[in-house]
Amino acid sequence: MKRSRTGRRPGNPDTREAILAAARELFAEKGFDAATMRAIAAAAEVDPALVHHYFGTKEQLFVATMQFPMDPRELIDQVVAGGKDEAGVRLARVFVTIWDSPIGAIGASLVRSAMSNEWTMRLLREFLTTQILRRVQAELKLDTADAPLRASLVASQISGLALMRYIMKLEPLASLPADDVVAAVAPNLQRYITGDLGQDGTARP
Amino acid sequence: MKRSRTGRRPGNPDTREAILAAARELFAEKGFDAATMRAIAAAAEVDPALVHHYFGTKEQLFVATMQFPMDPRELIDQVVAGGKDEAGVRLARVFVTIWDSPIGAIGASLVRSAMSNEWTMRLLREFLTTQILRRVQAELKLDTADAPLRASLVASQISGLALMRYIMKLEPLASLPADDVVAAVAPNLQRYITGDLGQDGTARP
Repeated sequence: MKRSRTGRRPGNPDTREAILAAARELFAEKGFDAATMRAIAAAAEVDPALVHHYFGTKEQLFVATMQFPMDPRELIDQVVAGGKDEAGVRLARVFVTIWDSPIGAIGASLVRSAMSNEWTMRLLREFLTTQILRRVQAELKLDTADAPLRASLVASQISGLALMRYIMKLEPLASLPADDVVAAVAPNLQRYITGDLGQDGTARP
Repeated sequence: MKRSRTGRRPGNPDTREAILAAARELFAEKGFDAATMRAIAAAAEVDPALVHHYFGTKEQLFVATMQFPMDPRELIDQVVAGGKDEAGVRLARVFVTIWDSPIGAIGASLVRSAMSNEWTMRLLREFLTTQILRRVQAELKLDTADAPLRASLVASQISGLALMRYIMKLEPLASLPADDVVAAVAPNLQRYITGDLGQDGTARP
């Protein structure tokens, strides 16, 4: 967490909040790609230049709307650093390290609120898809045909680990030492990333 | 869903509701094993014989408190029918079949409400542990030392699949044909059930 570009918080707090509210609404409604900085600025009734000035890029604005406590790109860099053949164990390690830290409580709270609010759920799904999964796929140079399926399977295992270990606190998984969690889960993640999924990946919808 | 013992609903609706409310509270607070039928009857201010008369066994009472739309024992029978070497694919098949049906919406609603209510979460965890995971372990004759860990890892994958495919509706997993989901997920479940977890299972807390 060395970089903290969104932590600068320049400008008028009301204007910042208006931009964040407009961004949340448009990212959830139209999706990240279709929600332009211009449209967000218009909805917040500010000049587009001000949005860039306050938040930087559209990616940075999205991170700010999620109140995500760190830049996801740093996490992704750690996961992909060893290439795709090591991605399973690195992903497990990075995930467990973050969620075992105080940041885990923020993640748990975000997941919980997404469950009770349809728009927060959409926003979280859009964030997961465009800011995390899509980038990991690109960085790992996964085959494009089945990469989205692989990414969503990885998400199913990781989100279930979050749910059982950190939110529901199901034992013995909740108290299992981090190294043992990584050893147990990493090979399953690796199969989703590079293994045989038992089907013709090119036929995915 | 041939059997429907909890669907009989005999007796006074107010008494039934009082028993269910007391049972929910005690199962969540003390856990399934420690919450006796006698204590539940006392909390509901009814005779213990009436609890048995209305709901049958303590297991049946728990199923009734969860408003679970089917007897979990029937599902467990299907999962364990082929023994532990087939349990991964059978579990994937049973799970996807149930959640692809209208019952899935009930499951999704239960998971969502557990997220916003700590007591519902405890109740769901207790139900999962005592009514599903413990029985599957026993039926599959898993080695007792690491069976609870294996069960909680299975729960992490299954709950994440519920979350991503049915609740968050992450694509392409959300629209993937059931057979492809089973093919993708079953080997990972099977590894959790019978595979090498990369650690000494007897050292689990």
